[in-house]
Amino acid sequence: MAVMASSPHRAVVEHLVRQAVYQRLGKPMPRAAAAPNPLVVNVSARHCHLTQAAVEALFGKGHQLTVHKWLYQEGQFAAKETVTLVGPRSRVISNLRILGPCRTLNQVELAYTDGIALGYDLPLRASGNIKGTIGGMLMGPGGFFEMPDGIIRALRHVHMHPTDADYYGVKAGDQMKLKIGGPCAIALEAMLVRVDPSFKLEVHIDTDEGNACNLQPDTPVELVK
Amino acid sequence: MAVMASSPHRAVVEHLVRQAVYQRLGKPMPRAAAAPNPLVVNVSARHCHLTQAAVEALFGKGHQLTVHKWLYQEGQFAAKETVTLVGPRSRVISNLRILGPCRTLNQVELAYTDGIALGYDLPLRASGNIKGTIGGMLMGPGGFFEMPDGIIRALRHVHMHPTDADYYGVKAGDQMKLKIGGPCAIALEAMLVRVDPSFKLEVHIDTDEGNACNLQPDTPVELVK
Repeated sequence: MAVMASSPHRAVVEHLVRQAVYQRLGKPMPRAAAAPNPLVVNVSARHCHLTQAAVEALFGKGHQLTVHKWLYQEGQFAAKETVTLVGPRSRVISNLRILGPCRTLNQVELAYTDGIALGYDLPLRASGNIKGTIGGMLMGPGGFFEMPDGIIRALRHVHMHPTDADYYGVKAGDQMKLKIGGPCAIALEAMLVRVDPSFKLEVHIDTDEGNACNLQPDTPVELVK
Repeated sequence: MAVMASSPHRAVVEHLVRQAVYQRLGKPMPRAAAAPNPLVVNVSARHCHLTQAAVEALFGKGHQLTVHKWLYQEGQFAAKETVTLVGPRSRVISNLRILGPCRTLNQVELAYTDGIALGYDLPLRASGNIKGTIGGMLMGPGGFFEMPDGIIRALRHVHMHPTDADYYGVKAGDQMKLKIGGPCAIALEAMLVRVDPSFKLEVHIDTDEGNACNLQPDTPVELVK
């Protein structure tokens, strides 16, 4: 089966339409329409990032991850490959999705609800900062791979291009707030800002956060300093 | 085994200590200490409320719920009895705790994460407002009980005494905001106010909300209008 390009995110379409309509009407842009880029908020279900060596231990020598679905960040994808995680108390999470491409470090990102199911207290960490965290065992069809550490709850964060950072008046490492509307509205504080010229504006929250507010494609969202 | 009285909630002890310390120092009370009652925030894991008829169908004729643990609201308890819920797609949640005493209506309260596991979209409802909601089948050691409706995600809410309502300047049916601090702080909007002379001041949130902010006994909380 050929890998299909994902259809554009609803927030992207809405942003384009909003800008076009205000331009056509010759009216001043409201703040949301004036932003250089649409605000996309995506819920990351539990997943892992692996090194090529880990992928080969789990799926066989020379194995390359295959694309299941392209993600919003350029070049990032959910792989067809999944693994089974065995936690420190021998409890299991199966069908843990691998995100590609391979990285230089092995990291499993879970929600607290998953941590409770596994029976341990997840450390809250910025992605990549895994020193002193708990490890576990991964199982794939080709073998096992032991992680000495790297199981975390990822700190909620927003990816942005330097243009977005300028617009919002923030810099890498700052914290912002994400307001999510709807009938069970919440505001997520301590949203870590990550800036890189390769990034598209996108907030990543986990399933606990997404389910707390029942985030849907049409739920209103606002990123504030 | 005798049923033990629960030890007082940390928020209750802190409130008493705070009031005593300020009084002793002869200093004016800060707002949190001046409140008539401590603010207790509890996470409700998935559970159900049942009629006596449902309990008898599930556990046998004449069966009475037994107390596993007293809850913060006077006379309310987690029962020793649990049931298995079979959802509309035949998926199962086992060990669903019954809360007692029996009520005049059958209601299952789940988090959205549970709804996803069961494979259906939970309606968000104030407790008791179950008209038009989905039903399911309950299984107990003594038999089955069919619920034609009553499976919901309960709207986050705060129980309060009229004294608390006066202090916060709200009335039954109003909405408040709960600010929860810590490293993954959130603010929960649309917190339904429920007022009754029998109520103690207590916020009930579900496991998605509690895990989104990793609520711990020492996490700072504040209820605002």
